[in-house]
Amino acid sequence: MIDSIDLNTDMGESLGAWTIGDGVDSSILPLISTANVAAGFHAGDPSTMARTLSEARQNGVAVGVHPGFNDLVGFGRRHIDAAPEELVNDVLYQLGALRELAKREGIALHHIKLHGALYMHGVRDRCFASALSTGLYASAPELPIYCLAGSELDFAAKKLGLQRVHEFYADRDYDEQGNIIFVRRIDRLNPSHIAQKVLLACRENLVKSIHGKTVPVSFQSICIHSDTPGALDIVKAVRTSLNEAGIHIKAFKN
Amino acid sequence: MIDSIDLNTDMGESLGAWTIGDGVDSSILPLISTANVAAGFHAGDPSTMARTLSEARQNGVAVGVHPGFNDLVGFGRRHIDAAPEELVNDVLYQLGALRELAKREGIALHHIKLHGALYMHGVRDRCFASALSTGLYASAPELPIYCLAGSELDFAAKKLGLQRVHEFYADRDYDEQGNIIFVRRIDRLNPSHIAQKVLLACRENLVKSIHGKTVPVSFQSICIHSDTPGALDIVKAVRTSLNEAGIHIKAFKN
Amino acid sequence: MIDSIDLNTDMGESLGAWTIGDGVDSSILPLISTANVAAGFHAGDPSTMARTLSEARQNGVAVGVHPGFNDLVGFGRRHIDAAPEELVNDVLYQLGALRELAKREGIALHHIKLHGALYMHGVRDRCFASALSTGLYASAPELPIYCLAGSELDFAAKKLGLQRVHEFYADRDYDEQGNIIFVRRIDRLNPSHIAQKVLLACRENLVKSIHGKTVPVSFQSICIHSDTPGALDIVKAVRTSLNEAGIHIKAFKN
Amino acid sequence: MIDSIDLNTDMGESLGAWTIGDGVDSSILPLISTANVAAGFHAGDPSTMARTLSEARQNGVAVGVHPGFNDLVGFGRRHIDAAPEELVNDVLYQLGALRELAKREGIALHHIKLHGALYMHGVRDRCFASALSTGLYASAPELPIYCLAGSELDFAAKKLGLQRVHEFYADRDYDEQGNIIFVRRIDRLNPSHIAQKVLLACRENLVKSIHGKTVPVSFQSICIHSDTPGALDIVKAVRTSLNEAGIHIKAFKN
Repeated sequence: MIDSIDLNTDMGESLGAWTIGDGVDSSILPLISTANVAAGFHAGDPSTMARTLSEARQNGVAVGVHPGFNDLVGFGRRHIDAAPEELVNDVLYQLGALRELAKREGIALHHIKLHGALYMHGVRDRCFASALSTGLYASAPELPIYCLAGSELDFAAKKLGLQRVHEFYADRDYDEQGNIIFVRRIDRLNPSHIAQKVLLACRENLVKSIHGKTVPVSFQSICIHSDTPGALDIVKAVRTSLNEAGIHIKAFKN
Repeated sequence: MIDSIDLNTDMGESLGAWTIGDGVDSSILPLISTANVAAGFHAGDPSTMARTLSEARQNGVAVGVHPGFNDLVGFGRRHIDAAPEELVNDVLYQLGALRELAKREGIALHHIKLHGALYMHGVRDRCFASALSTGLYASAPELPIYCLAGSELDFAAKKLGLQRVHEFYADRDYDEQGNIIFVRRIDRLNPSHIAQKVLLACRENLVKSIHGKTVPVSFQSICIHSDTPGALDIVKAVRTSLNEAGIHIKAFKN
Repeated sequence: MIDSIDLNTDMGESLGAWTIGDGVDSSILPLISTANVAAGFHAGDPSTMARTLSEARQNGVAVGVHPGFNDLVGFGRRHIDAAPEELVNDVLYQLGALRELAKREGIALHHIKLHGALYMHGVRDRCFASALSTGLYASAPELPIYCLAGSELDFAAKKLGLQRVHEFYADRDYDEQGNIIFVRRIDRLNPSHIAQKVLLACRENLVKSIHGKTVPVSFQSICIHSDTPGALDIVKAVRTSLNEAGIHIKAFKN
Repeated sequence: MIDSIDLNTDMGESLGAWTIGDGVDSSILPLISTANVAAGFHAGDPSTMARTLSEARQNGVAVGVHPGFNDLVGFGRRHIDAAPEELVNDVLYQLGALRELAKREGIALHHIKLHGALYMHGVRDRCFASALSTGLYASAPELPIYCLAGSELDFAAKKLGLQRVHEFYADRDYDEQGNIIFVRRIDRLNPSHIAQKVLLACRENLVKSIHGKTVPVSFQSICIHSDTPGALDIVKAVRTSLNEAGIHIKAFKN
């Protein structure tokens, strides 16, 4: 059985005077091992990024870039029909912007994870997945790609020998095939139910689908969305329950 | 006498479907040694940046980042009253974004030069100059800073031991004190007059002020603005006249 | 036979320091009867809008609003997967913004015409077409909608009794069914060929398809895109040829 | 003594997925008489505006437009050095955008009030104040201007015969001259202290300065900022205390 697991959440998704969700970034940071930091296209701005990087460093949390579509009003949740090369340029732009601010802070980037509709585009679109993998291979081959197992991006990155990290979505439902059911808004969840679900996944690599069937899952990181209502309580419950089971929260290591 | 001099112009200041000025980036690139590439805040977008980087590489032109205020509509020419630290974060963000796209292209950044109102802010504001120098010292100490001799940024960068490159502004007038007279719009200039002015500056370190006095100038690079009307003809005339005088156009080397 | 026809082009698609295409707005305005003015989402900004309105008034050109997707970098040519109600709010926002600036100029808006990918969305998406018609019925029922004959927006607007104006696309090809063939970029066209094509359409309501077949067309306005290469020459040729045939350029009148 | 007074707060300053401050717009609306609605430049977006208008109508709250500098990241609190005419175009753009969405909702706009740094620009800059008054006189002469007594905008608007409404700032301190002391961030205030301060101002036209002196004030509306920490409690306390004193909250009427 595993004795440690990575726990990642999205961070730095505020914008200027606005904070996202419950505004609990600072409370969540001490509890997780990796943060996916927004880089200004769907959320975040240079000063929010700098602040998030500083807090991540103080908490010993590894930082990945979380690039999204160029759409603040839509929070990167609306697909934009752009050419693959345009989107790859957008991703590298965001990656570099965060990497520079991280460098000043003395932090090396840990990974990359796409956001929202761009994440889903990486799941489904072969051209984009291939172009993105090629781009990352050229400029950031050292960064593991957090992605959905079996997605187009997963395959394209594998083909180029890039490291991929598959995730278990603690706050999303699974169907009979072990696929995540993506939704735009989710209700407030019961933290202890989530904690049990995560424990089962970590111990036995199993998840209960929405129809009650038990299906196998394989992953190297747990994801909890920081804008899920009650995210802080969920993270606390998951961490406590894992710790009690002897499983430590630790950043993914290649 | 010098046998080579750096010639820099702003490049990549298009935006999506729009091109700036006469749209002569591709014609100017073969004639210059260094390009200041816009990075998305006052002009440019990730795909314009990628295209400009690729063309610069093909022409053997060294690339610097050209960060500006976050103001597309104002083209970075309107001062925004932001805190020094905010602006430093903005600059590093732009620097990193271009650096990443350059890395993919196999290019190491050559220098940094601020744009428009942000350039003027670096001339006058001691707090910003100091904060920016500190930021660059931490994340990009290898990059020479193209700046105005005697400006606040010049002093602040010098204090930290950062390399500075002073410029001769071929398409701007000088006053009796050898200071550049900055204007928002300039008329179409006579290319051969500019070429003579540059030649005098390169050979004898002198410039004729608007009132006819001859004043000394000291510089390591010549700047010609690519959005000056008739920029291409000016660059051609300057290059030809310098070449005929045995002075080659060559990127500044530390 | 008709003795007058409306001729519309897109105008005001500059942005701050950038001008679009050949930058010939001022030369085209005296030649047309109606202008579709960009309103800040895909192109244009408040000051560009104000300047365009002033020039339109001086030339006696009727002004319509030309709303697009919120995407400057993509020039409104990339579809954004937004909810119908969001898009209707975006359209009314742009419409009102232009209407207010027009009011100051003493101009009443003449029509509405969607731009680029949003225009195509109105062609195909029934939900959006219906929501938009409802929105326009509530706030701007007096404005004719320039749209594609047979499109979803055409049907939805008709159902609410809104005036529609169908267009003949002078600078686009037609297929055997009389449908326009939309393309992202078009080559430089022969102005006199276009002029003959328009004349045939105005006199006999016929157009020659790309495969040589002659198909019927019905329209109340001719559209020439101002960012088509050589747009000014096309507009001149069309206007001259129509005038010589005794057909005057005159804004559509309800 | 007065038997009613206007109570205005800023509303609709959310952006897409983000809510501002305590996110209490819906709770505050039933308690106030006029709302200053953000229009997309410093905060707000078309769909947030539409939602805010709908809620305002349901609560019988009069709606004014609240235009700001074009600066989402800075929340309109950073001065941008733009030409007066550019800023007037920006203001009319925002005014019209809100007016159109309001028209669909069956609402006529009630007033205009500048936001943040643009408000302060109207206080101090004679050229802008004059250009704005001229612009509003041409397109929206029916809208009272909420502004600081004795400001440049106050004088310029008066000169053109435009209605002005002076405000009492419940959540800001006053100096010995009766001037408001503007600050970027304010601490959590004691609601009952504020309520007493407002009551004194309404009953006796007096306010206690930060140095303890009692100075006269004259106003037709009370302003409470909705992003002041604890804004909802302050609004409740003020309303209750005024109601108990027989003073009703009622929109300003020309």
